[in-house]
Amino acid sequence: MRVGLLGAGRIGNVHAQAITTHPESELAAVSDAFEQNAQALASGYGCDVLSSDQIFADPSIDAVLIATSTDTHSDLIEAAAAAGKAVLCEKPVDLSLERASACLETVGAKASDIMIGFNRRFDPSFSALKAAIDAGEIGKTELLSITSFDPAPPPVEYIKVSGGLFRDMMIHDFDMANYIFGAAPVTVSAVGTSIADPAIGAEGDVDTAVVTLTYADGRIAVIKNSRRAVYGYDQRVEVLGSEGLLQAQNVLENTVVKSTTDGVSSAKPTYFFLERYMPAYRAEWAAFVEANKAGKGMPVDLKDGVAALAMAEAATRSSKTGKPVVLADI
Amino acid sequence: MRVGLLGAGRIGNVHAQAITTHPESELAAVSDAFEQNAQALASGYGCDVLSSDQIFADPSIDAVLIATSTDTHSDLIEAAAAAGKAVLCEKPVDLSLERASACLETVGAKASDIMIGFNRRFDPSFSALKAAIDAGEIGKTELLSITSFDPAPPPVEYIKVSGGLFRDMMIHDFDMANYIFGAAPVTVSAVGTSIADPAIGAEGDVDTAVVTLTYADGRIAVIKNSRRAVYGYDQRVEVLGSEGLLQAQNVLENTVVKSTTDGVSSAKPTYFFLERYMPAYRAEWAAFVEANKAGKGMPVDLKDGVAALAMAEAATRSSKTGKPVVLADI
Amino acid sequence: MRVGLLGAGRIGNVHAQAITTHPESELAAVSDAFEQNAQALASGYGCDVLSSDQIFADPSIDAVLIATSTDTHSDLIEAAAAAGKAVLCEKPVDLSLERASACLETVGAKASDIMIGFNRRFDPSFSALKAAIDAGEIGKTELLSITSFDPAPPPVEYIKVSGGLFRDMMIHDFDMANYIFGAAPVTVSAVGTSIADPAIGAEGDVDTAVVTLTYADGRIAVIKNSRRAVYGYDQRVEVLGSEGLLQAQNVLENTVVKSTTDGVSSAKPTYFFLERYMPAYRAEWAAFVEANKAGKGMPVDLKDGVAALAMAEAATRSSKTGKPVVLADI
Amino acid sequence: MRVGLLGAGRIGNVHAQAITTHPESELAAVSDAFEQNAQALASGYGCDVLSSDQIFADPSIDAVLIATSTDTHSDLIEAAAAAGKAVLCEKPVDLSLERASACLETVGAKASDIMIGFNRRFDPSFSALKAAIDAGEIGKTELLSITSFDPAPPPVEYIKVSGGLFRDMMIHDFDMANYIFGAAPVTVSAVGTSIADPAIGAEGDVDTAVVTLTYADGRIAVIKNSRRAVYGYDQRVEVLGSEGLLQAQNVLENTVVKSTTDGVSSAKPTYFFLERYMPAYRAEWAAFVEANKAGKGMPVDLKDGVAALAMAEAATRSSKTGKPVVLADI
Repeated sequence: MRVGLLGAGRIGNVHAQAITTHPESELAAVSDAFEQNAQALASGYGCDVLSSDQIFADPSIDAVLIATSTDTHSDLIEAAAAAGKAVLCEKPVDLSLERASACLETVGAKASDIMIGFNRRFDPSFSALKAAIDAGEIGKTELLSITSFDPAPPPVEYIKVSGGLFRDMMIHDFDMANYIFGAAPVTVSAVGTSIADPAIGAEGDVDTAVVTLTYADGRIAVIKNSRRAVYGYDQRVEVLGSEGLLQAQNVLENTVVKSTTDGVSSAKPTYFFLERYMPAYRAEWAAFVEANKAGKGMPVDLKDGVAALAMAEAATRSSKTGKPVVLADI
Repeated sequence: MRVGLLGAGRIGNVHAQAITTHPESELAAVSDAFEQNAQALASGYGCDVLSSDQIFADPSIDAVLIATSTDTHSDLIEAAAAAGKAVLCEKPVDLSLERASACLETVGAKASDIMIGFNRRFDPSFSALKAAIDAGEIGKTELLSITSFDPAPPPVEYIKVSGGLFRDMMIHDFDMANYIFGAAPVTVSAVGTSIADPAIGAEGDVDTAVVTLTYADGRIAVIKNSRRAVYGYDQRVEVLGSEGLLQAQNVLENTVVKSTTDGVSSAKPTYFFLERYMPAYRAEWAAFVEANKAGKGMPVDLKDGVAALAMAEAATRSSKTGKPVVLADI
Repeated sequence: MRVGLLGAGRIGNVHAQAITTHPESELAAVSDAFEQNAQALASGYGCDVLSSDQIFADPSIDAVLIATSTDTHSDLIEAAAAAGKAVLCEKPVDLSLERASACLETVGAKASDIMIGFNRRFDPSFSALKAAIDAGEIGKTELLSITSFDPAPPPVEYIKVSGGLFRDMMIHDFDMANYIFGAAPVTVSAVGTSIADPAIGAEGDVDTAVVTLTYADGRIAVIKNSRRAVYGYDQRVEVLGSEGLLQAQNVLENTVVKSTTDGVSSAKPTYFFLERYMPAYRAEWAAFVEANKAGKGMPVDLKDGVAALAMAEAATRSSKTGKPVVLADI
Repeated sequence: MRVGLLGAGRIGNVHAQAITTHPESELAAVSDAFEQNAQALASGYGCDVLSSDQIFADPSIDAVLIATSTDTHSDLIEAAAAAGKAVLCEKPVDLSLERASACLETVGAKASDIMIGFNRRFDPSFSALKAAIDAGEIGKTELLSITSFDPAPPPVEYIKVSGGLFRDMMIHDFDMANYIFGAAPVTVSAVGTSIADPAIGAEGDVDTAVVTLTYADGRIAVIKNSRRAVYGYDQRVEVLGSEGLLQAQNVLENTVVKSTTDGVSSAKPTYFFLERYMPAYRAEWAAFVEANKAGKGMPVDLKDGVAALAMAEAATRSSKTGKPVVLADI
């Protein structure tokens, strides 16, 4: 598989590494709005610098990986689909549910062949937890809890264009809930507060939030987010079932334990998403390559991307009105 | 301190052991609606069997421990207070917030000298967590999560008279939130479902619930309850603060770890409250004895008992209406 | 069972609590070389102060618990056995293997009815580990490791009369090896050093030691001792078998885990033997009462006490000569 | 740095990956006694297939990585050093201490520039433990324990040519002891047994062994080896110091914890050295590249390789005679 990479920023570089180390894919070309970014990445990996249009037009390129800024995702998905390329696009599809829904409509039947980069589904621990559920190891699932804290708040400039915590950060957790429970919720209730960073509150956004989801069959999910956990990236999932509990715990930097007069201490969780999810990004790419060969749709597709966005939209509204939102009303 | 024990059931027996092993208290008398219960306990500990009225009337008895059925708590608190006894009463004060509030009014200034048996405050791990917060070890608290699962649902006969999950079970967690955060919430949002035991749903109660509490200063708390966690009594508290995270984890039956081809396994959490909280019951009694000597009010008093009940009332309403309830409206 | 307690020191008080809280035993009398010790204990528990001879002569006393200084153990065992009392004697039987062996010979057939207080066999975690082995959970045992570190070295005055690390401290671990493996070793190889406390070295004793035991069937055991582990009482056992590994880990003071920029930390191990082994002392006493009723010998008897002492003797010699000692040569 | 890889077997492939993903090194050529092995590796990485002599003769090749069979190591080290190449050679230097010592003499002053592949020094957890010691976090080190168990015994054909457990397997742990304590021991006492696999015993080798090392300053180290731990690769290091304890624990396959009626279980340790030490192999290569640039000698050099071999020789003798061996006598 010859791949065109759209976007040569930090996350583009992560994907470039996954593409080039996979035995069945190679990086053919890269584009970026800032050509020096594209040049830097291209010289490291020995690939061409092209425009995105040139990439779409190149018949030797089989697939594109979209790692550009969010506001370009839908346009590029549509263009890539029209050009007949296999597509893996970073989350979210768009900050606007309307635009994302339009994109879904535009690509039509191809939606299930467009993969959305919800990398956490491919984390070894989260996917092992999901496999255990599917194997019936805890019976019927009943109550899901997702803890997802970033180590430090982003700059306010980022907050301004982020779409807000629910669309930017918790969208990963909405997709995780969909992944774990395999169903969409009926209601979404959100409370949010800006207690960690007043600058975030000044922008009208929240930095700490709790969302409760209810499901048609009586199940309940709770998602907790904070922009600031000083001890590192806190990424945990816990599911209570009729026959037990499954927990995916944090990955620590190393396994050293120290016992002194102060107590027993171990290493911190890995610092942030690049450290924690590097194996997930590689597994995500491998799943994409595999799914393209199999031709039976993507493990997480455009429809999933829109579904998570609808939940983010519902949570944003609930957070503002203080009332539960029925997802179907979105 | 000579103590009269009102109620010789299971929890009465737990308290009898705490009273008799404490160096500064002795069990003077016991009463029970079923005299054979009282006789059995009295013969084990070598104390008198009296009626509650006789206990109140006996000037040699300094304190009473009320461990009778919930519907008698308020009456006995009032009578004991009128008789000038020190009082430790099992939770809840009453199933009816109205009756509990009336009791609070009746005892008046003595309310702060009446201890309510929220035993979990005296659990070594929860009190160590609280001490760490008070010592500023995680800076300002922001987000509290309480997980509280019972090992198995009670009989339906019990459910019928329990007042429902929020008043019977989650009331402990409401008090825990008050203990940890040292403040009452502004709003209470509850979702509940009967997914673990349909018989509970048939009684109009829930067996699985999530409650979100918001606070005037922007803090948030989440409480999760389930009546059925097959692996044992799951009792955890977790607090995110500006400078770190504190977690009180489960107590396991022993420290043996087994590694085989199946994985690495350890013992289960202690089975239920008697196993988990025996040290807490002893520490609770010691705190009561100590507070009586100090004469500066109880560490958890009648007002705290009524406050937790008000939150249970709010959660019950929210669970039924599907909307947040402002606690001040209760 | 009416019990006479010989010795009212620290460990005597521990046993007094176990005796009095057991439903089938009561403390009839206490003796101590220092009568004020005996008086203090007696007044707390409401029992008589007698001499040891009076206790032996009192037909209403069924059992004696010997918690006196080590040099009196053998004499008191012999006297108690002659008086027809059930006997639980603190370890070690004697510091002199000769004297202990003579005691064994003197009591003759009664040896199996004299229990020696190797309390660790009754620790909930060590006994669960042993039960798992007996249940075949790790197949055939192959390699045993015992880690046993005290929190702080004792005063030099104590060291002088202790008999040395192998007889005073590691004797517990020799018995643990016998308990876990259910067999006596063939060879004993010891290395010792005084690296933690030079004052101990100045007395000709060691404070840090490693002993390797070999068994006729090819199994191996390793015991590590240190008089000084500043983080608390470190008491671990680990067994490799043909089908897995069993580890009994430390008991921590509480279950609180704190995550900050410094890492993830938890409580220390319980400080010393009184904190760690209180449940073991109670279980030990219960086992003694039970075994007396059953009349089929003690779970750990005088012969076991002498066997552990022989291993201590062998280790002491090996440590001095630098060569393995064949246990049969002792 | 242009690198010639000698040996294209399993471990050669591991190194090829480390060489090619490092930004400052590239794989120039590969040689192997079985040309198809070399061809397969070369076609995957796009490098030349040459003989080792051609590699030594090629002035464009800066460094060689020796991953051939053990009996060729010393010859190739000598040839590479003579050719002026930087050298990273897999452990052990040789099975014969004599040959290894001769090699050390032959290369002379270049010995400190020849790196020996004791990969475990570069494991993130072991190196973090060492860094903590060097930072004084546990004061002065006193007692070291190394647990090193393989998941399954190798084929008997391998045992026959392995040089025995002490030279083949425990040599890693001897180097680890040297790394952690930064000193050579004075005495080496070994006991070994073939309890896990009788076929190994039939070859005159052991599969389970314990070695005790004593040091001039009174420190002690214990190494435990087993060829068969059915639960996976068990690789732990533990150091007691005057101010605390450091433990490097196993790496588990994932972080999922499951609680059911059977207990609480987590994933197994990673299966074997390829899984556990992949990050270590990469860090080892990076350290080699870095040390070559710095020009101040290797972090683990030919002398270290010979030192570990001498300890293996001493342990082999001690295991046979049943007596401690003074290392200086080897």
